[in-house]
Amino acid sequence: MSPDRVSRLVACLENKLDAPGILVGDAVSDGYAADATARGVRPPAVLRPRNTADVSAILSAANGFHQPVVVQGGRTGLSGASRPLSGEVSLSLERMSGVESIDIAAQAMIVGAGTPLQVVQQAADDAGLLFGVDIGSRGTATVGGNIGTNAGGIRVLRYGMYRAQVMGLEAVLADGTILSSLKGLPKDNSGYDLNPLFIGTEGTIGVVTRACLKLHPKPRIERNAFVALPSLKAAQELLAKLRVELSGLLSAFEAIFPNVYEGTVAHMGIRPPVETGASMYAMVEIQGQSPEQDNERFETALAAALEEGLAIDVVLSNSLREFNGLWAIRDGINDYLFGLGEMAGYDISVPLSRMQEFLDRAAHGVAEIDPDAVSFIFGHLGDGNLHYCVKTAHEKRIAEAVFSGIAAVGGGVSAEHGIGTDKVRYLRYARSEAEIATMRRLKEAFDPNSILNRGRVFEASAIAL
Amino acid sequence: MSPDRVSRLVACLENKLDAPGILVGDAVSDGYAADATARGVRPPAVLRPRNTADVSAILSAANGFHQPVVVQGGRTGLSGASRPLSGEVSLSLERMSGVESIDIAAQAMIVGAGTPLQVVQQAADDAGLLFGVDIGSRGTATVGGNIGTNAGGIRVLRYGMYRAQVMGLEAVLADGTILSSLKGLPKDNSGYDLNPLFIGTEGTIGVVTRACLKLHPKPRIERNAFVALPSLKAAQELLAKLRVELSGLLSAFEAIFPNVYEGTVAHMGIRPPVETGASMYAMVEIQGQSPEQDNERFETALAAALEEGLAIDVVLSNSLREFNGLWAIRDGINDYLFGLGEMAGYDISVPLSRMQEFLDRAAHGVAEIDPDAVSFIFGHLGDGNLHYCVKTAHEKRIAEAVFSGIAAVGGGVSAEHGIGTDKVRYLRYARSEAEIATMRRLKEAFDPNSILNRGRVFEASAIAL
Repeated sequence: MSPDRVSRLVACLENKLDAPGILVGDAVSDGYAADATARGVRPPAVLRPRNTADVSAILSAANGFHQPVVVQGGRTGLSGASRPLSGEVSLSLERMSGVESIDIAAQAMIVGAGTPLQVVQQAADDAGLLFGVDIGSRGTATVGGNIGTNAGGIRVLRYGMYRAQVMGLEAVLADGTILSSLKGLPKDNSGYDLNPLFIGTEGTIGVVTRACLKLHPKPRIERNAFVALPSLKAAQELLAKLRVELSGLLSAFEAIFPNVYEGTVAHMGIRPPVETGASMYAMVEIQGQSPEQDNERFETALAAALEEGLAIDVVLSNSLREFNGLWAIRDGINDYLFGLGEMAGYDISVPLSRMQEFLDRAAHGVAEIDPDAVSFIFGHLGDGNLHYCVKTAHEKRIAEAVFSGIAAVGGGVSAEHGIGTDKVRYLRYARSEAEIATMRRLKEAFDPNSILNRGRVFEASAIAL
Repeated sequence: MSPDRVSRLVACLENKLDAPGILVGDAVSDGYAADATARGVRPPAVLRPRNTADVSAILSAANGFHQPVVVQGGRTGLSGASRPLSGEVSLSLERMSGVESIDIAAQAMIVGAGTPLQVVQQAADDAGLLFGVDIGSRGTATVGGNIGTNAGGIRVLRYGMYRAQVMGLEAVLADGTILSSLKGLPKDNSGYDLNPLFIGTEGTIGVVTRACLKLHPKPRIERNAFVALPSLKAAQELLAKLRVELSGLLSAFEAIFPNVYEGTVAHMGIRPPVETGASMYAMVEIQGQSPEQDNERFETALAAALEEGLAIDVVLSNSLREFNGLWAIRDGINDYLFGLGEMAGYDISVPLSRMQEFLDRAAHGVAEIDPDAVSFIFGHLGDGNLHYCVKTAHEKRIAEAVFSGIAAVGGGVSAEHGIGTDKVRYLRYARSEAEIATMRRLKEAFDPNSILNRGRVFEASAIAL
């Protein structure tokens, strides 16, 4: 920690930023110290740029002083990327919020990085369009944070991860270099595409300031169904079948394991939409443009699933109330699990073809370490993304068991939430030494003094500490 | 040129590669000297690895000798990326061809980089699936080259560029480091995604050796229509409308300007499917899973276009013969234009909202330089990608005029074909100095001796020459 360095940085920025652009001492509220999962260190200063030029001035100065910076958006992250470490000043994009323009014909929108996701969704909706990513923290999570963590959510199956929504970015490198690429051209091979440098790299390569985002037609019909299935295998076969039969319609396929389903409906105090006692459950959703035809395709595909024995029971929503009611069960899972007390949670990605093998390995590993452990599994089966939660008193050893299972089947240790600071030690279960060394090489090329989100994704270089 | 250096490299590789892995002197056939547009220099040696380990051995040795390498796949490129420059040895991936595995449920395929596109398409088709990219050179162009140039083609509107087909890559860096990421997880935020380093960077950052490619459901219905329109504006409005009405179905929207349409049907000696004399023409295609419903949606949408005056005349294909017949006109354009003698061609990308402005600027600029010049315009309107061809004797000055128009409206100087060696001088019309410096920084971080496809995309660093 170097309070002198921070004071000098602040002094240097005082004539470049406006008064609300710098918070120091008691003006730094507690919120800046925490992300969605834990409290970190309260930063000695928070820098709040108005625009890209301000961001450039801040980074250029911080780089000159070798002053570490933590980049903050809505601070809703679940892995610690935006949770301040000792010695860091905060760069908060909160004032760079707002939708700048929407091109309805081109289905594209330009927004500031500090704009909350929900504002993006609403602006798209107001223009008769849809933004393809939705996550629970929509009211607070921002565009910049969503890009930095390559946010996922429920409709990745249909619209892809946040990466697929990015048509262009404006970003600032650690040395203050401004890169602006907001043309929104769907097809452009005029030199390297530099946008990927900033997507999913958790603010370690540069700071996103503005984005051109892709929009989609707003669905005229949304409908869902709750399905009871005889097995995980049947759920996988049904998924494969629906990806073909409902191509262009299927928008979610959420798997819910029996104890999670039964616990959630009991916790909610509602009548289960399909009978309990099955080996697997799923919530399936379509979004389409031709209500009559889409309904027919949905009903036909689900009827065929029943006939072929892939499904035991199906309940289709027949009203907006029923539609919301089925989603409420999926959304109610977190509430139920939180109520069970402290729980270890893993956001993992598993190849579909090896999912059963992974589950067997993990179950075996967990049981060996803690015979009393109880697992609760649900998630976005359509993307191979499971939320694997374990009620146990042996969190660290259980993590090793789960991630060893992941390593054995070639999965990912963080499907959606990123690595941040909290999962750095687990990265090696998913990526080779050569890959991690290459990440570091990329980081060092663009942030040689390691001022940006130092210690996130992989351990900081010795030289930077 | 350094024959000694080449001899030493070859000597060093002789015990690492098999006999067919090294061609020198007369064994190097003329084909290795050329790409699809021009003849370059015949390389003194061609290195033909069997596998990724061979590629690693070759690059590691070449890097040690600072020996420049040109990376070659099918050599169908149109910008000179794979056309050898003086002093380069060739690294040809031709022996690393073949489909390794297909996962039908996960809709994914693992292939060697030397595999021709058509083999990928056929293997997908045999498995009841579809590969989303199609380009004219499908029989020869390879996966590795397609990835290096981020190939586009006719169905980008539906399936995205080649970038969107890549679920994972295996690649080798200039120093021989092997990076393998072939898990094919649709959702994985376990550290940086390194694949983008190798997509669209034209072999300048590393050499792709294997790829995990995304597949799609095979359409049960494909149908197209030829449309005569009152104006470019009407074509743009029709496109915007169909992107909503035919969401999940629309697979191509090709615009053809009147003189190109009239010239092509006359050249083919066929009866025009829609009457000549309109201001604009388009070929529209759908691909879907539910023939009856999809046909109905297609017909309804086109009937509405006629009713609203967005279309003057529509001809729908009613058989495979008619379907192929309409495509033959689109495919016949190149034949017609080649027959007109030498012609300057620009593969440009234009924001939809500024397309008319661009056309006016370019027409004005062209007329000022060469009043006798004739322009022939067609292309993938759905992606803002025009093929802008000009019959003129003043190619260089016309290029400046067209690209100045591109710069003015924020377009791209190469929508599909990449920069290679041939368009290096035009990159600055589309990208800022900061962007080009950042590309160079990326290159230098991973290929400090600039051995890989030197002088492609941007000028080689002075230090490397």
